[in-house]
Amino acid sequence: MGQVFLNIKDPEDAEEIISSLPLQKKMEKVSIDEAYRRVLAEDVYATINLPPFRRAAMDGYALKFKDVFDASEDNPIRLKLLDIVTAGKIPETKVVEGTCIEVSTGAPIPDGADAVVMIEYTDKEGGSILVLESVPLNANITAMGSDVKEGELLLKERERITADKIGVLSAIGMELIPVFTQPKVAVISTGNEIIKNHEKLEYAKIYDINSYTVSNAVKACGCIPIHSEIVKDDYNSLKNAILEFKDADVIITSGGTSAGTGDNLKVVIDELGEILVHGIAVKPGKPTIVGLIKTHSVNQIIFGLPGYPVSALMIFHVFVAPFLRKMASIGETGVERSIKQYKLSRRYIPSRGRKQYVLVKIKGEEAHPILKDSGAITSLAEADGYFIVSKNVEILEEGDMVDVFSMQY
Amino acid sequence: MGQVFLNIKDPEDAEEIISSLPLQKKMEKVSIDEAYRRVLAEDVYATINLPPFRRAAMDGYALKFKDVFDASEDNPIRLKLLDIVTAGKIPETKVVEGTCIEVSTGAPIPDGADAVVMIEYTDKEGGSILVLESVPLNANITAMGSDVKEGELLLKERERITADKIGVLSAIGMELIPVFTQPKVAVISTGNEIIKNHEKLEYAKIYDINSYTVSNAVKACGCIPIHSEIVKDDYNSLKNAILEFKDADVIITSGGTSAGTGDNLKVVIDELGEILVHGIAVKPGKPTIVGLIKTHSVNQIIFGLPGYPVSALMIFHVFVAPFLRKMASIGETGVERSIKQYKLSRRYIPSRGRKQYVLVKIKGEEAHPILKDSGAITSLAEADGYFIVSKNVEILEEGDMVDVFSMQY
Repeated sequence: MGQVFLNIKDPEDAEEIISSLPLQKKMEKVSIDEAYRRVLAEDVYATINLPPFRRAAMDGYALKFKDVFDASEDNPIRLKLLDIVTAGKIPETKVVEGTCIEVSTGAPIPDGADAVVMIEYTDKEGGSILVLESVPLNANITAMGSDVKEGELLLKERERITADKIGVLSAIGMELIPVFTQPKVAVISTGNEIIKNHEKLEYAKIYDINSYTVSNAVKACGCIPIHSEIVKDDYNSLKNAILEFKDADVIITSGGTSAGTGDNLKVVIDELGEILVHGIAVKPGKPTIVGLIKTHSVNQIIFGLPGYPVSALMIFHVFVAPFLRKMASIGETGVERSIKQYKLSRRYIPSRGRKQYVLVKIKGEEAHPILKDSGAITSLAEADGYFIVSKNVEILEEGDMVDVFSMQY
Repeated sequence: MGQVFLNIKDPEDAEEIISSLPLQKKMEKVSIDEAYRRVLAEDVYATINLPPFRRAAMDGYALKFKDVFDASEDNPIRLKLLDIVTAGKIPETKVVEGTCIEVSTGAPIPDGADAVVMIEYTDKEGGSILVLESVPLNANITAMGSDVKEGELLLKERERITADKIGVLSAIGMELIPVFTQPKVAVISTGNEIIKNHEKLEYAKIYDINSYTVSNAVKACGCIPIHSEIVKDDYNSLKNAILEFKDADVIITSGGTSAGTGDNLKVVIDELGEILVHGIAVKPGKPTIVGLIKTHSVNQIIFGLPGYPVSALMIFHVFVAPFLRKMASIGETGVERSIKQYKLSRRYIPSRGRKQYVLVKIKGEEAHPILKDSGAITSLAEADGYFIVSKNVEILEEGDMVDVFSMQY
């Protein structure tokens, strides 16, 4: 028999090993213009009251509510118009009995006034205003601090900064926002057959796929991909490439992990650190490697994905993405994993002894398994999702219901 | 009575006017490194076969299948090992009867071979291989073009380029990807009370919120926000700001649209183009304006959002975002509008005569209406979504089921 995986793990064990890997969280301050979709690294407290002053909630007239307590269409109350205060202006006049001051929405309420009557319930007559409706105390006035009180907790550490939360941060005038530093992920495609897209395609060669798919999936997990050159599948090239990425928190390779010729990654990790997982009982993706590189001051986590694009992206999705999202402090929302049930369009016989991820195309209410081999890049592009088959299931019949997970990045 | 909206529209009419606004689509070519999440502007056809040559799907030995038709553990067949072909190498030897060549996954199949036996079903003995299992014709061989045939349609115009689709584009070695140009959206905050976050907060002033929230929501719709300075709410400042954004496809202002003091936007649009909507029968957001600016060679679309942050973002979400997504050729997936039903936690009495969008906080199975006024920025940050109340509904009882929509950007 050929070379075998000495340490093949059940996927649940592999997941546990990965989820207990060490996490280093760093923080930095970024301009509010750059904060969108980042993750807060500290609680944010209000440094000011919101609104910062007593203001008009409507366009209208600031007055004393007692002056108009019996105002109505039949009994208009005449008030002398003293002044106009627009938004942004500081009032210079006081409202006294029998008078009012015009205010626009957002304008400060002049001293002496205790209510605002909406412009719709008034008429103008020369230098006076006819009020056609009574208003209660504090009507259409927003009190200082009624939305937020100075010192109040506004946003919590670990919240993702969406557009509405940007609103909260800008409301208190924050310029620099404390966020978690995005983990840096080196992405390495290995293989002597792999060439870059600007090279001429010669016999025996194929264009690089994995560094593009994985890099973009890394972005979707809130991390920064560091693009590498393609690395030859030999011991020295691979070792040098890994040593070069001193600044990466995580290194992801693809290719060069299978148990046959050219299993250099295992040897390199053995020398530079420690292999934690060598082979996972899943299909596709059995030859996956997880390890630690210990040559730098901080241990780096290394994932060796299989070389086939579909296997690489599926293993990334199932095992690597949850870890990267945790490292980047973003939740499941970073990648929608919505589950929906569909009817299987045909009988499906899984491989024995391995948990299986089966890509499907959705048509109407039916999930159609995509039966291309994992070397086929088109199967990923066609797929709308995948379902999972536990390792001991022997057959799935046509019409059986399956949970379909999304893996769109 | 005060000034009124002369042209107030039902929200359905406003939606129809907006959805029939003219769309200019431009395209550009971007590097594949920049193509993630962009939208294809052309169909993409395969320029090569995938795989580009006949290759090994497994690590093993390329052989003639007839040589091993009766091989088994009890009857191992001995083949002379002629050569080794790893991935990326061009085979130099032919397989002839009684011989085999070691191949690794992805390696070209040497001439003469018509099947590959997996390494797991073999033993090595000196210069020979013992084959322990028979294999059918073409076993473990991936034919040239079996995944994709040269000339085949790979991806369609208007597809969003996700990580898996990047894989398809890189598989055929594309360097430049034809994508729709992202619409440019100028974002203007108007108001004499608005200041920038680096300014000192003085009485009567508030910090700018809308240009931050709207700009980031614009990004989520696949467009490029062009940040503006804050513009004073007077005719000349507003007019000059609008004229300055010659390159914008869309202009979004906020503030200065209500029917009271300072309704300058309407006057400016009347002069520079045409008002299409002035007021929509919704709450919040009644003073919304939609118009066309006709001073440049191509008409620009202008949306005047209300000044209150919650109103501005809600109107953006309901009326502007669908238009921007269409303009950017991205579908609903750009912003998840997932609908889920929840029980109303308390009686809710809507305003009469206006369709209403009510923000809610979800706790367990219950939707709790957020009853702060629309000047409160915290209500948006607290909200998990909103439900819609049609204009003729008089009351919603505690326990009534409501559809909750998401508006996270």
